[in-house]
Amino acid sequence: MPGPLPDPDLNRDLIRAAASRIAPHVRRTPVLRVAGAALGLAGDIVLKLELVQATGSFKPRGAFNRMLSVPVPASGVIAASGGNHGAAVAYAARVLGHRAEIFVPAISAAAKRARIAAEGAVLTVGGETYDAARLASMARADETGALVVHAYDQPEVLAGQGTVALEWAEQSPDLTHALVAVGGGGLLGGMAAWWGRGVGLVAVEPEACPKFSAALAAGRPVPAPVSGLAADSLGASQVGQLMFGIAAPVIAANVLVPDAAIREAQRRLWDAVRIVAEPGGAAALAALICGAWVPPPGAVVGVLVCGGNCDPGSVVSG
Amino acid sequence: MPGPLPDPDLNRDLIRAAASRIAPHVRRTPVLRVAGAALGLAGDIVLKLELVQATGSFKPRGAFNRMLSVPVPASGVIAASGGNHGAAVAYAARVLGHRAEIFVPAISAAAKRARIAAEGAVLTVGGETYDAARLASMARADETGALVVHAYDQPEVLAGQGTVALEWAEQSPDLTHALVAVGGGGLLGGMAAWWGRGVGLVAVEPEACPKFSAALAAGRPVPAPVSGLAADSLGASQVGQLMFGIAAPVIAANVLVPDAAIREAQRRLWDAVRIVAEPGGAAALAALICGAWVPPPGAVVGVLVCGGNCDPGSVVSG
Repeated sequence: MPGPLPDPDLNRDLIRAAASRIAPHVRRTPVLRVAGAALGLAGDIVLKLELVQATGSFKPRGAFNRMLSVPVPASGVIAASGGNHGAAVAYAARVLGHRAEIFVPAISAAAKRARIAAEGAVLTVGGETYDAARLASMARADETGALVVHAYDQPEVLAGQGTVALEWAEQSPDLTHALVAVGGGGLLGGMAAWWGRGVGLVAVEPEACPKFSAALAAGRPVPAPVSGLAADSLGASQVGQLMFGIAAPVIAANVLVPDAAIREAQRRLWDAVRIVAEPGGAAALAALICGAWVPPPGAVVGVLVCGGNCDPGSVVSG
Repeated sequence: MPGPLPDPDLNRDLIRAAASRIAPHVRRTPVLRVAGAALGLAGDIVLKLELVQATGSFKPRGAFNRMLSVPVPASGVIAASGGNHGAAVAYAARVLGHRAEIFVPAISAAAKRARIAAEGAVLTVGGETYDAARLASMARADETGALVVHAYDQPEVLAGQGTVALEWAEQSPDLTHALVAVGGGGLLGGMAAWWGRGVGLVAVEPEACPKFSAALAAGRPVPAPVSGLAADSLGASQVGQLMFGIAAPVIAANVLVPDAAIREAQRRLWDAVRIVAEPGGAAALAALICGAWVPPPGAVVGVLVCGGNCDPGSVVSG
């Protein structure tokens, strides 16, 4: 298996170091091999159940690694997110004993805000959109000197998310392909830094949030529309610079999935495996369900279920 | 670590043989180690996620082993259960190409009946209670010659359920104690046949279904009241003869939990781990939450989450 491409900002040593650093604080999430027939698919499917991670998504991996790699001032940490990243930063800050300020957009769900506040973070509504909240958070960080924990475009964050691939490679050494949902792309970027072309990474985006597709077409990260079922977790306005440089050259495929396939993937995960995945967490499986990506013969296909932060009843309704 | 007690009907060789026999048809369910603090508990907790088993509970292990150990006539298999056992027998019969008749009590939930019917089984309402359905199923088996698959009191069924312990021992060799919910007791009996006193088995019953407690007090299986939140999965009228002989001499403890602790365990599993456990599946954790059982110093505590067949929205309501 070929190793990853060399990258000055992110390599396997940095991901190994991140894994050691965050190990006391994150869960080694389990892998489950199921007969694809249960999900209406061919062959076996290897599910990586990252939704059982602390805070219900992969995000604490990057948040902890950032906070444990860079000195955190007394003014604490600051982040912009109304969703999984905000919850993860608030959680990591509480565990490590830092102050945290989280800037959320006005459109963020009340339940997610309550969760952030419950971790003891100071919560500020920073405008209507995620971008407005991000700009407000940057201005505030300039003022207080707090450490910014970016949702996806910092090397320490990518290295933390990359530990998903390191862990999965240990658990499933026979994996040939892995399907991963893309929002800002920190997760895909970190995993691409670990695997390079060694495991075929299939980037999956909702049709309603095609940011990586837009970036691949433009040759650089560019804004793209954000809407649809998974916008609350995959709705960054564009992918990160870092992830683009690392992932674009090595991915096996980039595919788009309709919201109906995401909903169907949520239903099948519940019916067949008793797993509650949020829309963004079910998007990777949706690519197999709608046929957006078809495994080559002999493939050992992994599907990353990256989050479970939704109303559990929603997976059987709607 | 001391081995299990010798038992003519059930020993480690039989459980090993069962594991080989059923391996093509059941899932190796994953284990997740979490900091107990996330669940409001001390130390680490090792969760065995048997709820992601095919059909949403451990029951297919025993059902497959029974059907693969004993010749199945053309008239197929027959079982009495309005719940997890019925779904597992219907599922195993479909996979193995056998006819299946499932006798359900009138009180069984429509959703569970629909699931049994969806597997292609013939479904008969056999009276008001589980016992009435069981008697009706026996009469029908006499008539057709179909193979009876008992919910918990046949050696092949116990050996199948015992594979949970075999698997868990491989995954968590450092386990010192395991908490297991008891209904008819097939799961506990099978696990006790594997572990004997080698791992301290803590039998957990709802206060509203105290059948094993009643049996321990009487020195033999006797009927006990059946009601409460977990009655749909733990509501057998009494524990099995086989399990009693195997488990009673070796368990570390037998404890009762109130329904309120079961509900709270469901809530915490969702809040902290994004797992939807049915009441019977959350009962084992409830024993730690309400303090019915307190681990000794240095214990490595396992909790078996044995089923997830409930309305997923129910874990956040009620």
